[in-house]
Amino acid sequence: MSTEDSVYAVILAGGSGTRFWPLSRELSPKQMLTVFGHESLIAQAIRRVDDFVGPGDVVVVTNERLFDELRNHLSSQADPRMRQARYLVEPLPRNTAPAIAYAAATLALDDPEAVMIVLPSDHLLERDGVWNSCVASAIAAARDGYLVTIGITSTRPEVGYGYIQAGEAMPEYARGGAVPHVATRFVEKPDLAIAESLLAAGGYLWNAGIFVMSASRVLEELDAHVDTAPIADTARWLAAEQAAGRCDGDEARRRFGEITSISVDHAIMERSDRVAVIPSALNWSDVGSLLALGDVLPADDAGVVRVGRGVDLDTRDTIVYSTDRLVATLGLNDMLVIDTADATLVASKDRAQDVRLVVEALALAGAEEVVQPKVSLRPWGSWTSLLKGPGFQIKLLEIHSGAKPSLQRHHHRSEHWIVVAGTALVTRGDERFEVHVNESAYIPVGAEHRIENCGKVPLKVIEVQLGEYLGEDDIVRLEDDWDRKD
Amino acid sequence: MSTEDSVYAVILAGGSGTRFWPLSRELSPKQMLTVFGHESLIAQAIRRVDDFVGPGDVVVVTNERLFDELRNHLSSQADPRMRQARYLVEPLPRNTAPAIAYAAATLALDDPEAVMIVLPSDHLLERDGVWNSCVASAIAAARDGYLVTIGITSTRPEVGYGYIQAGEAMPEYARGGAVPHVATRFVEKPDLAIAESLLAAGGYLWNAGIFVMSASRVLEELDAHVDTAPIADTARWLAAEQAAGRCDGDEARRRFGEITSISVDHAIMERSDRVAVIPSALNWSDVGSLLALGDVLPADDAGVVRVGRGVDLDTRDTIVYSTDRLVATLGLNDMLVIDTADATLVASKDRAQDVRLVVEALALAGAEEVVQPKVSLRPWGSWTSLLKGPGFQIKLLEIHSGAKPSLQRHHHRSEHWIVVAGTALVTRGDERFEVHVNESAYIPVGAEHRIENCGKVPLKVIEVQLGEYLGEDDIVRLEDDWDRKD
Repeated sequence: MSTEDSVYAVILAGGSGTRFWPLSRELSPKQMLTVFGHESLIAQAIRRVDDFVGPGDVVVVTNERLFDELRNHLSSQADPRMRQARYLVEPLPRNTAPAIAYAAATLALDDPEAVMIVLPSDHLLERDGVWNSCVASAIAAARDGYLVTIGITSTRPEVGYGYIQAGEAMPEYARGGAVPHVATRFVEKPDLAIAESLLAAGGYLWNAGIFVMSASRVLEELDAHVDTAPIADTARWLAAEQAAGRCDGDEARRRFGEITSISVDHAIMERSDRVAVIPSALNWSDVGSLLALGDVLPADDAGVVRVGRGVDLDTRDTIVYSTDRLVATLGLNDMLVIDTADATLVASKDRAQDVRLVVEALALAGAEEVVQPKVSLRPWGSWTSLLKGPGFQIKLLEIHSGAKPSLQRHHHRSEHWIVVAGTALVTRGDERFEVHVNESAYIPVGAEHRIENCGKVPLKVIEVQLGEYLGEDDIVRLEDDWDRKD
Repeated sequence: MSTEDSVYAVILAGGSGTRFWPLSRELSPKQMLTVFGHESLIAQAIRRVDDFVGPGDVVVVTNERLFDELRNHLSSQADPRMRQARYLVEPLPRNTAPAIAYAAATLALDDPEAVMIVLPSDHLLERDGVWNSCVASAIAAARDGYLVTIGITSTRPEVGYGYIQAGEAMPEYARGGAVPHVATRFVEKPDLAIAESLLAAGGYLWNAGIFVMSASRVLEELDAHVDTAPIADTARWLAAEQAAGRCDGDEARRRFGEITSISVDHAIMERSDRVAVIPSALNWSDVGSLLALGDVLPADDAGVVRVGRGVDLDTRDTIVYSTDRLVATLGLNDMLVIDTADATLVASKDRAQDVRLVVEALALAGAEEVVQPKVSLRPWGSWTSLLKGPGFQIKLLEIHSGAKPSLQRHHHRSEHWIVVAGTALVTRGDERFEVHVNESAYIPVGAEHRIENCGKVPLKVIEVQLGEYLGEDDIVRLEDDWDRKD
């Protein structure tokens, strides 16, 4: 199947997902988690539409805080769709309508026919033949001006999701069994009684936040209402500024601050008379809390889900997830034990939704473990903090074959490099020399330097930094393959 | 107060304390824990009698497995009593009677008047004036041939301890308010009904395992019974072999294997007609499980005992103890969360006694975290394992001022040393040179080498090892200040 012309993926990736701490961090949010499959959730989202969207036609909408981390994450993937993703950085978070408007205005500048497949970056969806039929059908309807959403057949009276009522069928857009219907009603997250009545009534689908719509139609719908017209105007202004290579961040933040913070459901879907929904029986989850680990991982006879080394004695109905370390449990019931290299959470299962309160309390206490993961992704690979001591710090650098971190120097620290795997090409001042396994190099304070993986296997280097100041911001980048300034 | 002639401390230090995992490990047992005060439990035990016992008169009875670790631990203490401790290594563990007999036979060889203060190495005891009076009184009675135990006034119907009934007073041995009484009955750990009746009856004291007795009397009492006479014989044989500088380990193990495994209570105290008990109102605990943390550490209003970084939200009556890392809890009740650098235990409080089962299960699974702590003490300081990777390993070495690990070489690994604090004097083959902060040295495979802290402050070195085999046993010691062979 070849990709379709003028079809773009718009990945909404501004969420922080604090309910997944300590697996997620501010700078490594839920969408970057790889615990729900072989790839991260955002990589799964991008791959989900690769039958429709070509390399270079993936747009990731995010915010300033996450931009670097997402780019580091996606640019280290093998798939060209991910490496070539375009990034739209929202000046301020204003909910989904402004984010989608920004993408629509940007795409419409170059391609008036642009159709966007809008996907959350942090959901799970089992991809099968049904999915592709839904997308193909949605694109057909969207090309005719419909604002299309793909709805999930409800299987329980769920109070955590919104619902969409499907009306009359539109067989002219049917593809491989997927049939758009006129969407007749949107219902916000209901209480249990209402959820039960919706399930009993039939014809109500879960709103999975998946939209297929033409960029120009999105802007047109926003233009049509007094409260949302400024969203379209601001999106067009920002897209034009970006296209012109201008970027006055303060002005952009000012303008974004003035528009309404509103969801695409409220701003467009509930107001338009050309909305369609495609009922699908897809296996979908919004991955709302750490309990989702229990949905995707197998449990033993005692109901224990266990990942990582350790034992569970007389423990029942408990999730034990460890990324690195040994974790043992004894006599637990209905608990969550989530263990990472630098932080552990132990919670009662029925409090899974309140993990965000733990994160808030830790943030107030200044715990850097809510911000930064222990392994920090970079476009060239990653570094892992092994030890911080008075006046020194140790990192493990892992550098992809052919990659090179920036040519740089430091004002306050010298660095010792010991190659433990692979071969490095080191630049130090005017010198260039190879450093092989079991060899070392010393970079004095102030010296211009660069390390490059000139070999065919991953390069692993132990870096011992010494200095009076060891902050990440003591770096002057002189050349960088990713145009990073700091 | 000066120490008394012919008075020796005999510290029983063969216990493994698996109920304290992950704080304790096979090679870092409960008696080495420093969580119950400023010093380890064994250091507290030795210090407890420093008004009576001079340097060089402390005897630590332990086993082959723990000997190195205990010596490393005690020889790194400032107190000369600990640095100069003598070690008696039991060929096989045979309970307390053979251990005490071995000490008695050894001491009696050189000093027929020897009086032993026998102390468990892993209990807590609040040391005050009462304690010294008890010991002084016990020594007086012991010099007259009494086998004396110091009993603790019972304050609750405890089923975890044995009891001793105090009979007629012996005022001739009273010292500062401490009065020995004839011990009329020993009661093993009772059930609750019996414990309640003993408390109600009065005159029953907890058996704290603290004994004061002359070495020759111990041997005499053992000689008096057919089943225990071989214990005294074997102890005398082993002491004589050791004194003669002979040490046939196989023969020693064979002989020890043939004697009865029996406690000193059963072997001597319950049989002799010259047993005394000194009632004391000392604040004592046998530190029986991790719950003891709750006895020595303050709890907040919700009953939460917390050590280490993190937050507890809606958590009650729970012990959270973290040595290194961030630990957060949410909605827990009556739990134990014990976190160390490399392993975490989460247990229901009412299962604290069963932590040993967790250790057994982990040992079966081959988890090295039950054996080895992450920080390994050495007589010269310590090393900490920071990272093990394929073909490499990183350690932080900390070396006391003036100390030097052995002159050694390795068959399989080379080592890179980077000094991050202090100054090192390095021997490498025929070379000797200083390595200063921010300098490095390389030790090729096979090269004879030694590192020495030639400075006045602690030396800290990052050691990166590379090789096909990185086991601790790849070490050939050519010279060693502590006569270690491997």
